[in-house]
Amino acid sequence: MTTTMKRWQLTAAGRANLKLVETAIPTPGPGEVLIKVAAVSLNYRDKLLVDAGFGMLDPLTEPLIPLSDVSGIVAACGEGVTRFAVGERIVSTFLPDWIDGDGPGTARHPNGRNLGGSLQGVLAEYIVLNQDWAVCGPRKLSHTEASTLPCAGLTAWTALVERGRVRAGQKVVVLGTGGVSLFSLQIALLHGAEVIVVSGDDKKLARARDLGAHHAINRKREDWVEAVYRLTSDHGADHILETVGGAHLGKSLDAAAVAGRISLIGILEGLDVSGGFGAFARKRVVVEGIQVGHRRALEDLVRAFDLSGTTPVIDAIYGMNDFEAALDHLDRGPFGKIVVEVG
Amino acid sequence: MTTTMKRWQLTAAGRANLKLVETAIPTPGPGEVLIKVAAVSLNYRDKLLVDAGFGMLDPLTEPLIPLSDVSGIVAACGEGVTRFAVGERIVSTFLPDWIDGDGPGTARHPNGRNLGGSLQGVLAEYIVLNQDWAVCGPRKLSHTEASTLPCAGLTAWTALVERGRVRAGQKVVVLGTGGVSLFSLQIALLHGAEVIVVSGDDKKLARARDLGAHHAINRKREDWVEAVYRLTSDHGADHILETVGGAHLGKSLDAAAVAGRISLIGILEGLDVSGGFGAFARKRVVVEGIQVGHRRALEDLVRAFDLSGTTPVIDAIYGMNDFEAALDHLDRGPFGKIVVEVG
Amino acid sequence: MTTTMKRWQLTAAGRANLKLVETAIPTPGPGEVLIKVAAVSLNYRDKLLVDAGFGMLDPLTEPLIPLSDVSGIVAACGEGVTRFAVGERIVSTFLPDWIDGDGPGTARHPNGRNLGGSLQGVLAEYIVLNQDWAVCGPRKLSHTEASTLPCAGLTAWTALVERGRVRAGQKVVVLGTGGVSLFSLQIALLHGAEVIVVSGDDKKLARARDLGAHHAINRKREDWVEAVYRLTSDHGADHILETVGGAHLGKSLDAAAVAGRISLIGILEGLDVSGGFGAFARKRVVVEGIQVGHRRALEDLVRAFDLSGTTPVIDAIYGMNDFEAALDHLDRGPFGKIVVEVG
Amino acid sequence: MTTTMKRWQLTAAGRANLKLVETAIPTPGPGEVLIKVAAVSLNYRDKLLVDAGFGMLDPLTEPLIPLSDVSGIVAACGEGVTRFAVGERIVSTFLPDWIDGDGPGTARHPNGRNLGGSLQGVLAEYIVLNQDWAVCGPRKLSHTEASTLPCAGLTAWTALVERGRVRAGQKVVVLGTGGVSLFSLQIALLHGAEVIVVSGDDKKLARARDLGAHHAINRKREDWVEAVYRLTSDHGADHILETVGGAHLGKSLDAAAVAGRISLIGILEGLDVSGGFGAFARKRVVVEGIQVGHRRALEDLVRAFDLSGTTPVIDAIYGMNDFEAALDHLDRGPFGKIVVEVG
Repeated sequence: MTTTMKRWQLTAAGRANLKLVETAIPTPGPGEVLIKVAAVSLNYRDKLLVDAGFGMLDPLTEPLIPLSDVSGIVAACGEGVTRFAVGERIVSTFLPDWIDGDGPGTARHPNGRNLGGSLQGVLAEYIVLNQDWAVCGPRKLSHTEASTLPCAGLTAWTALVERGRVRAGQKVVVLGTGGVSLFSLQIALLHGAEVIVVSGDDKKLARARDLGAHHAINRKREDWVEAVYRLTSDHGADHILETVGGAHLGKSLDAAAVAGRISLIGILEGLDVSGGFGAFARKRVVVEGIQVGHRRALEDLVRAFDLSGTTPVIDAIYGMNDFEAALDHLDRGPFGKIVVEVG
Repeated sequence: MTTTMKRWQLTAAGRANLKLVETAIPTPGPGEVLIKVAAVSLNYRDKLLVDAGFGMLDPLTEPLIPLSDVSGIVAACGEGVTRFAVGERIVSTFLPDWIDGDGPGTARHPNGRNLGGSLQGVLAEYIVLNQDWAVCGPRKLSHTEASTLPCAGLTAWTALVERGRVRAGQKVVVLGTGGVSLFSLQIALLHGAEVIVVSGDDKKLARARDLGAHHAINRKREDWVEAVYRLTSDHGADHILETVGGAHLGKSLDAAAVAGRISLIGILEGLDVSGGFGAFARKRVVVEGIQVGHRRALEDLVRAFDLSGTTPVIDAIYGMNDFEAALDHLDRGPFGKIVVEVG
Repeated sequence: MTTTMKRWQLTAAGRANLKLVETAIPTPGPGEVLIKVAAVSLNYRDKLLVDAGFGMLDPLTEPLIPLSDVSGIVAACGEGVTRFAVGERIVSTFLPDWIDGDGPGTARHPNGRNLGGSLQGVLAEYIVLNQDWAVCGPRKLSHTEASTLPCAGLTAWTALVERGRVRAGQKVVVLGTGGVSLFSLQIALLHGAEVIVVSGDDKKLARARDLGAHHAINRKREDWVEAVYRLTSDHGADHILETVGGAHLGKSLDAAAVAGRISLIGILEGLDVSGGFGAFARKRVVVEGIQVGHRRALEDLVRAFDLSGTTPVIDAIYGMNDFEAALDHLDRGPFGKIVVEVG
Repeated sequence: MTTTMKRWQLTAAGRANLKLVETAIPTPGPGEVLIKVAAVSLNYRDKLLVDAGFGMLDPLTEPLIPLSDVSGIVAACGEGVTRFAVGERIVSTFLPDWIDGDGPGTARHPNGRNLGGSLQGVLAEYIVLNQDWAVCGPRKLSHTEASTLPCAGLTAWTALVERGRVRAGQKVVVLGTGGVSLFSLQIALLHGAEVIVVSGDDKKLARARDLGAHHAINRKREDWVEAVYRLTSDHGADHILETVGGAHLGKSLDAAAVAGRISLIGILEGLDVSGGFGAFARKRVVVEGIQVGHRRALEDLVRAFDLSGTTPVIDAIYGMNDFEAALDHLDRGPFGKIVVEVG
């Protein structure tokens, strides 16, 4: 049996510092599992982190393995492991300290320990994880599909289900067609909701319709807020997945129904989010920051996808050697997820 | 028995259009009650409305009686009235169509029908109300005190209790010492919470301490966010009553605990509220627009004050003839509430 | 235009006191609407009430029109009606005083005012309703289908959605195949849940499978609790619709998952419900009495069925003259609902 | 430094098998802490377990240290301990696997791993605990007082706060004056609720009044359900702490308000709980099994007691040698808690 493996690593911010290296397969310590990695999916923050550090890479004391979302198989168990057995499929959790409920962290130091950032990542042929940092993988999805659940899938699930309690008949507005947006579309449909997708690209809108979206709005051709009013007989949106950020929050506040919810997820238009007090207060809107989710919710998501047979939308698959091309793809605005197949 | 009464009325925006007039005592129709008014409290929106119309007075087709919050006694019942009997004490509801739960309204036309604005107000010796637009008054408060509950009291209750589910041991930050802020202080204390009051006025802070506040921060002398970190061992604020608005929301986001709640109530610093995405998402903060509250919550508030013997804080009492002086007082930033005694 | 109509009425408990009579079409008073009735559905309590009074008929001061669940068209509006216009479709609410939230009533006198019991019922060609006692009917269902929503449909919705917050991937156990049970099946599927139907009749189980149930258990051939363990890998049921009552609650407690919910709905096996403390406490089960639901939830249900195109399951349709045969059918345990077509 | 210590241990069910022995002070392994025990409180289940095994002692493979609720000081930390430092005060958690949220366990095998039962207990001069099985102790309580929080205090907190969301002005009925009951009284008062204590002993009722109970009912002299109606103007009880069990649940259902909550905690009158369906459904009562609570709630409870200065009610304190006398005291129905001081 081979004792070495390939992994990607980063020694400082910037593509020049990214390298594919050969190294020893690690050994799981007490309470740890060795995972044979099958697939790893990319998130937009990974690109920010590789290219610019994202405020996390400054004091790198050892090379960082990038990426956080893995599907793989337990290859060995360290002493005292009770949650998994060799041969079982797992997917990783992004915020390993958050099991359920409120979670850790303080106002000054929020709960930020995460894979592929403050903790080592997963883009390697083998990785070692604390047994508490993973859940049983879905039985009906491929590894490639399963690898998209830990961040993008869970973020959408947390926003709509764990926090939003979406129910049949509600109106859900999905902004854009990236990974979290398409998961939101699928999860809303799974709960019987009416889904309106907003995008500036007719081809992507047509694909969203094929996935089951009830309505598709091209925001370049019409005011999407007015379109939401029209499509909902003025009711407005019960849930909005706000992936744009910045001053765009103001539009989402306008589109929100009375007692509607806006899940703050993305920041394409800027880190300073803003909106009108009038819409906020007169409609009693809830705006909630969404940070991926906890482990129990990931288990719920896996269970729901296994039951329904819902398949995550994957825009492109890259090989282990083509990680940099995968990062480039992120810039072009994928329709759904991008995955690196490792195993 | 006299058949005429005095009432204040407004024929257009601007103090010049405000007049105290003599008019006939109205007669309650089917389902309505005639109220002998004892006391009426002022809210900041009343000043905006009288002075500038606030967008509501433009198409006035008949003179508007100003103000919305009344405590009084049922003087007569129209046909079919079942909720009240002559002689009973009542306080009014501000949003009469909102009984409980989600309430009425659409994204385009939020639930806005309210007393002293889109509906006739209450600053008169007698008023007629639909029986559904009032609740039984508190037994242990004077009319003057009771008149402060419908808007300021209920707003604080809705933010902290009905929506916020405040519990003993939580950290509550109260910004300022106006009516809603002091009710928030009292209601938080009533539930065993730890209260931090932030103000720029040492005298007001001292009075807040006298009311039971655990901590008082003078925001002119120290960064209040850092003070909240210090006083809570970095935990942050579980609840913040955001009465400032504008870019100040950013500070409140910084001060919020993980999974903390910010209740958006006021707009002293501007109608466009804004804050940083990082704090929002990494701490999973909930920001919720608060619009007074529903009738069932007002009943809960009355019950809670009756049991505890909590007394609303009244800064000044004016007579019926001195309504304009009471409006002027609002500009000077009262400590608690201002009331016009009518009866 | 004709001025008389047919209606069923009851002068005392017992079939002998049930009569189809000719009478004047009523006139809507202020705030009331005249409804041209199209269809009326039956509930088990109607049979109890007609046959035995159910404790409600003793002091009948005027003949009671039986039944509570109607779909029809607004034929005329009384003065001051704002919720409906002539020609609109409506369905009735069962508990007219419960708009949203907590609802009225006391420990001694629970919220009991309901159509076809303490209030006049609906089995007539025309009825008059307070405008607040109805909601807009579904656009995509026939009147016959729509008439099944006010009690059976809403009870299932309240249990699973309004109170239970069912989510995709959860395990739902439906006991029996009556009206509420089949609505529970459909509503659970609409939210992506996994549904296990328990019945003693293989033919009914086969029909439940046709409706989409994932699993069907014949309780006469196997212990249904053990079957639930087997089908859920010991997880148990997240939701149980308890329509049996009596000591059967003990079995449901055994079948419940940790933190599972049991909705108490029916009483086929007796009014005194009982179960083991151990299962209750060690699994922290919630058992909640379900009493139909409020008006806002009925609106939500209508919206969900209109969106999804879900069709209520109707076992048999009777004509206005055959009401007594419809009552007899109830005794034989219908698969879904029984409706009287009136219009 | 001494290397031996005293501990109580049980080799099989029955007092004859209970012994105080001298043994080696244990050593903390990786992730474990050594606790110098200061005080240990008793719960009724401890008596059942010592006397009758309670179904847990049958296959004892090694002597069991009894009792579960400890307050002490960290004396040493094993490798990798991050939650505590030497010298810090801790209290133990009863269900160590339940951190927050839903918690572990299945329908067939509920979450039952607990100290002093399926896991070793704490009645020793030193114990070793996994660092995850404890929380920081309260700063303002003595060890003796603090030792009462892990089961009795947390059970009352879970019932009223974590699950029940008690608010000011609500009516809370406390049955009896044992440990959980008096904590319920104190926690309800801490949240501004109105508390009615029911007991058969006038002296205990007088002491409950001294602790702040608003009303005291001697159930031997009047029907306590009728008394609740009378004291609440028929509203009924919003929360009932049901410590009696058996058919007594039926009385609690009668006393419950519309949408009231009954927390099932105790079993003095039998393991088979029962009650009337009519009260259940017509009042939409929630009955929930309470099983102590999770670690995050214990942290909340500690924080609340530290802030308020609430002092747990201790009926009697015994020395380490007098554990058997302490067990005897449990049979006589203590007013509050019984504690063994160890350190």
